[in-house]
Amino acid sequence: MTFNENAEGVYTIAATPFHPDGRLDTASIDRVADFYLECGVTGITALGVMGEAPKLDADESAAVVKQMVRRAGKVPVIAGVTAPGFAPMRALARDAMDAGAAGVMIAPPSTLRTDDSVVMYYRQAREAIGEDVPFALQDYPLAFSVVMTPRVLARIVADNPSCVMLKIEDWPSLEKISTLRKLETDGEMRRVSILTGNGGVFVNYELERGSDGAMTGYAFPDMLVDLVKLSKAGRRDEAHDLFDAHLPLIRYEQQPGVGLAVRKYILQKRGAIQHDAQRKPASSLSATARAEIDYLLSRLARFDRRALL
Amino acid sequence: MTFNENAEGVYTIAATPFHPDGRLDTASIDRVADFYLECGVTGITALGVMGEAPKLDADESAAVVKQMVRRAGKVPVIAGVTAPGFAPMRALARDAMDAGAAGVMIAPPSTLRTDDSVVMYYRQAREAIGEDVPFALQDYPLAFSVVMTPRVLARIVADNPSCVMLKIEDWPSLEKISTLRKLETDGEMRRVSILTGNGGVFVNYELERGSDGAMTGYAFPDMLVDLVKLSKAGRRDEAHDLFDAHLPLIRYEQQPGVGLAVRKYILQKRGAIQHDAQRKPASSLSATARAEIDYLLSRLARFDRRALL
Amino acid sequence: MTFNENAEGVYTIAATPFHPDGRLDTASIDRVADFYLECGVTGITALGVMGEAPKLDADESAAVVKQMVRRAGKVPVIAGVTAPGFAPMRALARDAMDAGAAGVMIAPPSTLRTDDSVVMYYRQAREAIGEDVPFALQDYPLAFSVVMTPRVLARIVADNPSCVMLKIEDWPSLEKISTLRKLETDGEMRRVSILTGNGGVFVNYELERGSDGAMTGYAFPDMLVDLVKLSKAGRRDEAHDLFDAHLPLIRYEQQPGVGLAVRKYILQKRGAIQHDAQRKPASSLSATARAEIDYLLSRLARFDRRALL
Amino acid sequence: MTFNENAEGVYTIAATPFHPDGRLDTASIDRVADFYLECGVTGITALGVMGEAPKLDADESAAVVKQMVRRAGKVPVIAGVTAPGFAPMRALARDAMDAGAAGVMIAPPSTLRTDDSVVMYYRQAREAIGEDVPFALQDYPLAFSVVMTPRVLARIVADNPSCVMLKIEDWPSLEKISTLRKLETDGEMRRVSILTGNGGVFVNYELERGSDGAMTGYAFPDMLVDLVKLSKAGRRDEAHDLFDAHLPLIRYEQQPGVGLAVRKYILQKRGAIQHDAQRKPASSLSATARAEIDYLLSRLARFDRRALL
Repeated sequence: MTFNENAEGVYTIAATPFHPDGRLDTASIDRVADFYLECGVTGITALGVMGEAPKLDADESAAVVKQMVRRAGKVPVIAGVTAPGFAPMRALARDAMDAGAAGVMIAPPSTLRTDDSVVMYYRQAREAIGEDVPFALQDYPLAFSVVMTPRVLARIVADNPSCVMLKIEDWPSLEKISTLRKLETDGEMRRVSILTGNGGVFVNYELERGSDGAMTGYAFPDMLVDLVKLSKAGRRDEAHDLFDAHLPLIRYEQQPGVGLAVRKYILQKRGAIQHDAQRKPASSLSATARAEIDYLLSRLARFDRRALL
Repeated sequence: MTFNENAEGVYTIAATPFHPDGRLDTASIDRVADFYLECGVTGITALGVMGEAPKLDADESAAVVKQMVRRAGKVPVIAGVTAPGFAPMRALARDAMDAGAAGVMIAPPSTLRTDDSVVMYYRQAREAIGEDVPFALQDYPLAFSVVMTPRVLARIVADNPSCVMLKIEDWPSLEKISTLRKLETDGEMRRVSILTGNGGVFVNYELERGSDGAMTGYAFPDMLVDLVKLSKAGRRDEAHDLFDAHLPLIRYEQQPGVGLAVRKYILQKRGAIQHDAQRKPASSLSATARAEIDYLLSRLARFDRRALL
Repeated sequence: MTFNENAEGVYTIAATPFHPDGRLDTASIDRVADFYLECGVTGITALGVMGEAPKLDADESAAVVKQMVRRAGKVPVIAGVTAPGFAPMRALARDAMDAGAAGVMIAPPSTLRTDDSVVMYYRQAREAIGEDVPFALQDYPLAFSVVMTPRVLARIVADNPSCVMLKIEDWPSLEKISTLRKLETDGEMRRVSILTGNGGVFVNYELERGSDGAMTGYAFPDMLVDLVKLSKAGRRDEAHDLFDAHLPLIRYEQQPGVGLAVRKYILQKRGAIQHDAQRKPASSLSATARAEIDYLLSRLARFDRRALL
Repeated sequence: MTFNENAEGVYTIAATPFHPDGRLDTASIDRVADFYLECGVTGITALGVMGEAPKLDADESAAVVKQMVRRAGKVPVIAGVTAPGFAPMRALARDAMDAGAAGVMIAPPSTLRTDDSVVMYYRQAREAIGEDVPFALQDYPLAFSVVMTPRVLARIVADNPSCVMLKIEDWPSLEKISTLRKLETDGEMRRVSILTGNGGVFVNYELERGSDGAMTGYAFPDMLVDLVKLSKAGRRDEAHDLFDAHLPLIRYEQQPGVGLAVRKYILQKRGAIQHDAQRKPASSLSATARAEIDYLLSRLARFDRRALL
């Protein structure tokens, strides 16, 4: 369980718990960290977009990472350090590493257009955070408007020895994962860990295409842990049966904007956090939406008793 | 079964069949129209993006609509006329209506930014196509980068008596549908038909929120027809059981770029078209992808024998 | 004066004249063509964005090109055929070439992101219009959101023997032109004509960097013709004196949206067209704006008597 | 000379001076502040995009503002606090105000689309920075992809008593300024200061349309100071003669990316800063570009001896 090019399993995007009045809920940070460990995750990603990172100031960010790291013990914690400039990125990375993080994750700014500009960006980002800080590259065109071909990703991996992981959440992702693994097999790219996101909507097939696991914040990380194990053990039908039972909820949770509210609502129901509050600006759930989630959970519970909440 | 503000059920986005050498497959146009009628659709949308409309020239477009209309009989056919200017839009609309279409569908250009500019655009579009041509507005921010609030949609509906339908494929869509229906109930918007798209990924909940049906090209329109009936009949659990069995495939088919290849592959398997060929530029399926679809179909067939192909 | 890789001088973006009621003003087409010839242009670009191309239907487009070609005599006319799909592009190109155009101009769709996707697009566009149709590539990131590095442009030039001209209106353009010319000198790109646009705002330095001339619709194409001559003759100070006198107006005319209204207002004053009307949707000039243009012209007239209107 | 709704004159966007090795050049901060004061500016904007703000970490940012404030004396200093979230914005604003800033400037994030979302954003931003912190709204669609109509700006002004200034750098800007001033005259918007940017390319006409001055980083702020005085004194021809002499250089300096290098090169020549170095990632000037600037300066010097460098 180290954050390196062989990382596998589930890196959960950690929720950041708040009190209803907007203060950080430090008791719940411990609680949610414990919850993730009990779920069997192999890593925790703090300060992701779904972790409400932009709503934290620098001191709070460092504090959250520090507490997560202490509670997570041997499970590595990485921190999102995507920023509008290299100075805040460096500051965030330094704070995170000082707080005990195992590495960081970096997404590109939405202004990049040509292949060369993307490659250059990651070179400069690596220089900014320091050569010794291992990092994951977040490939998420839908959110960041930057498209990287497998060849461009291979150039970045070659350029930056400290790039140990690709978080592939391109859409579609499947052929891309196959192509990346083929580049490795053909000796055109060194081995890196590939985890996938997009809320987990394609994770069952992504595993079969060669991903090492998932990095997403789905409210049932324990299901994802089981799924990875079943898939890697070649128990295909069981893996898909498990996944398909969860897909209606996964799909519901993946809705932009409202997704985090869904996720916190369920995490609270599961006892992982004390409140489902978000710091402002917050999305919220209508009564109808909450009823829909309850219905989704009740349907899921017929197959997976963990959903019996 | 008229294209007006009370339209309901399933308007399928029609595939456009080609021969492997790129010629229009006119025999398959009849065949796929028959297939849709047998599926029980209440309308057909020709020349949608998924219908490879930009790959047809003006004569071919008119010919496709004309043949679809003749074969569809009493089932209304509407035509996508989204265009980079009002002159080609007018020409497309005129061709389509001359060919017997019941109406047209219009999406906004990606350059629109303010509320007023969107409202103005639809006023000018309506003037361009003619006051007497009923039209559906396509609200699809993910594809067109234009966001319309419910209030803006209500302004457009008020402005344009010939706007009879909203195709809501905003993401998320659920609260938006509820808000639009509330505007109607509160007397702040006249009744219009609301169909939903996004590949059908949320159609089960969209129906419960007040949509009148679906407008999408999912390769099992017959399932969508059944779903609408079950949902409207209040047979909730049966509706969700049916939908959830299809969701793994619906999700797979919704992948950008490759989705059309998936759709045509299945339509061919179902005998609806002779070839799964796309005109260039075409996406294609790897052997792995085809095997994944076959696996998805085999899993679906355990629940829905229509997938036994 | 042929449209090929050695084209130089001024290709003016032709205004399309309308009557106040929106009908094409065919008498003014002859008149404006004569005006351009008297100005000494070496080429005419019809159906550019500034030519209100999207407001014309297919028959009108072909008619405009045909009339321009007949009137222009030996001066080559090229036609903008940028389109949302290859089928309408092919139809536009065929219509234009049938009408006697010397070639076409193609800008990329705003959805392209990676280097490879841009290269692929131009290969497919060339196949669509036909190998024998010479074309200009329009490199205009501000309008089309697609960025092409010099290396990517060189790949496109190598790929497509029928690509004879680059219209460089990247912003900034100067180093790009120098780099492209260096690629030629170094034998890494074959010679192509480079004209520049952006309303002419940088044309004085672009010429010094190696461009062959201008392709823009500035209302004083005769000034641009003189400027190219002075610059190519090495009469640097005179060239800049002339250009700088026009820059305040060039800058005013370059305003997005309102620029075409400025241009037509001046063309009408110069007698080149009968009305300054635009077909709807049209921008218009406030009384204040018209007074500003008159003031700009009166100031310019102190230096260049052609502005004495 | 206070930062409030009656602010006028020139708020210069301050350059941030660096040593060639990337360290902040604190001696030059004093020197450039003195230079701006000698130029007669009425305000200084620190930490703008052109001030390389994203390349500074939080401590450096606060230090720069603090030193500028101390040196500027009675001339108000405002600080750019545009940020990807309200937490870093609050932190930046607090640091800036603690350092003695007179207020802050806020641009919207590029993800905003509807009128309501823009209005909501500024309400939340004002809550984040505190009700007592006066702020300028930066309206710069070309950079931020957010378009705000005059009505939307009026809503934001009405909503936020602490919004005292609009920096209008929409393109085009002229009718927008006229419309905003008419909204004030008609009693539909309270008086706010309107300064303009866009590198100053339209400032001569913007002043005539009702702007109160300029906020830009042009390397001759003394010219802008003179221009505002001449324009406000009704000495129209003199104002335009002065401006037009500078326009070739203003236009050259406005080039994206390379513009800051041009600006620093001239500021160094004028003795305002010790080095023209930028912190990485930096744009740079080719020998050809430097020669072009020297030529531009020599031409300008024929009219304005301040350019005799």
